[in-house]
Amino acid sequence: MLYLVGLGLGDAKDITVKGLEAVRRCRRVYLEAYTSVLTVGKEALEEFYGKELILADREMVEQEADSILKEADVCDVAFLVVGDPFGATTHSDLVLRAVKLGIPYEVIHNASIMNAVGCCGLQLYNFGETVSVVFWTDTWKPESFFDKIEKNRQNGMHTLCLLDIKVKEQSLENLMKGRKIYEPPRYMSVNQAAEQLLAIIQNRRLQGEEPEITENTICVGLARVGAPDQKIASGTLYQMSTVELGGPLHSLIVTGTMHPLELEMLKLFSTARILFKKSSNG
Amino acid sequence: MLYLVGLGLGDAKDITVKGLEAVRRCRRVYLEAYTSVLTVGKEALEEFYGKELILADREMVEQEADSILKEADVCDVAFLVVGDPFGATTHSDLVLRAVKLGIPYEVIHNASIMNAVGCCGLQLYNFGETVSVVFWTDTWKPESFFDKIEKNRQNGMHTLCLLDIKVKEQSLENLMKGRKIYEPPRYMSVNQAAEQLLAIIQNRRLQGEEPEITENTICVGLARVGAPDQKIASGTLYQMSTVELGGPLHSLIVTGTMHPLELEMLKLFSTARILFKKSSNG
Repeated sequence: MLYLVGLGLGDAKDITVKGLEAVRRCRRVYLEAYTSVLTVGKEALEEFYGKELILADREMVEQEADSILKEADVCDVAFLVVGDPFGATTHSDLVLRAVKLGIPYEVIHNASIMNAVGCCGLQLYNFGETVSVVFWTDTWKPESFFDKIEKNRQNGMHTLCLLDIKVKEQSLENLMKGRKIYEPPRYMSVNQAAEQLLAIIQNRRLQGEEPEITENTICVGLARVGAPDQKIASGTLYQMSTVELGGPLHSLIVTGTMHPLELEMLKLFSTARILFKKSSNG
Repeated sequence: MLYLVGLGLGDAKDITVKGLEAVRRCRRVYLEAYTSVLTVGKEALEEFYGKELILADREMVEQEADSILKEADVCDVAFLVVGDPFGATTHSDLVLRAVKLGIPYEVIHNASIMNAVGCCGLQLYNFGETVSVVFWTDTWKPESFFDKIEKNRQNGMHTLCLLDIKVKEQSLENLMKGRKIYEPPRYMSVNQAAEQLLAIIQNRRLQGEEPEITENTICVGLARVGAPDQKIASGTLYQMSTVELGGPLHSLIVTGTMHPLELEMLKLFSTARILFKKSSNG
């Protein structure tokens, strides 16, 4: 049996009882380590689960899936995913390959950022399409996610923005020279995402447009949702560019039309209570 | 401390380890029993948690919230919700009331139908606004959810349809006579939801419209997601009106534009493999 087990969002104890039991009876346990991270490392998980974990990076999952599935028809193998196994990224490839090999699979669900964002008080059914905000480079500054946010807002919908994660990336130089040397992991912060959005708004204005989203649009910044030190800050998009939320992972919500009860909940997390980088300097 | 604990979707063991620890140290534990149900009853949960549960129906949560929060500033109280505490229905009222009373709260997240539907292979970020399909009565047949599904599909987005649950409803007669006699619970099936959609399509055609959604639109019916006897069936909307998925809870997805990988996953659940009511009669 192949178990696809969601780990939830915080630490080792966010696994479900069912998930923990499955992990403990598996012969091999893989930890998917490129689409998300917990607030604790591999060692803390190994200690709590009482199992050695095999780190599975993108290369391994995409190119050596057969090694993950090896003998899974006669023994139990677990594939652990932060959040839900079918959360932001599905692992359809692995499932399809298992089915083709005649290996049964079972999904053990858990919270993912896609549903846990509800903790800020915005109703999940008022969210439109989810977007991904990628790190801009000097030569690649995509803006397509902005149009989706605008469309959601025009329809009164909130937008969850998933922020880029760069794990095990190679520099262009190392890539070209075939050197397997990797850059340190990078996680986009709410500040960086807000700055990119503000830059797009400026671009659009220079082109004579009047974007629906402005520096005054109410947004919500979320950090380490589900962890004991989770932080949520609501405020304007401009405020999101300076709010201090601490370490990864971050997510950003751009609101649409708000119900009074949603607004009341957001007030609990108003940035007035949060330390600002700039104001703390000034 | 007020703990809002998600129970996940299947049975008692879908609670997280963190959630279970919280429940076991609480003085009072409430089970929210009107927005969703697990595949196991209160007794099975009580046995596994080692705690007596107090059933909290809508009346209690909305009118006697203070009794739930009583002394939660000096002892621990848990409020258990099937799925995630901020899943399909938020419990913002309870949270706001706790904050006003100076009672700290902690959310322990879990899977909800809002993210677990990813198990059918459709990517969560390709979903538009979620809709609720309510039981029609002789005099009340709302169609507004259909327009939202149409809009999502025009934008290429899938739509998750949450299907109506009627728990502790009174008949008009009992309501008028003030008798607290309740009807047996009703859970809308995928068949019933599909029939309502088909009826709306017919209505629209009679009005000279050409709906985007037709009897041939690809849909996915899901039953008891996360439970050992979960069933998923993909097929046309017409097929959804006859597919046999067993007991509650059911959900329906109306697809938008599909990525090849999504299509390949849906094929795993093609209705060809599932028993049909009508064909099994014929």
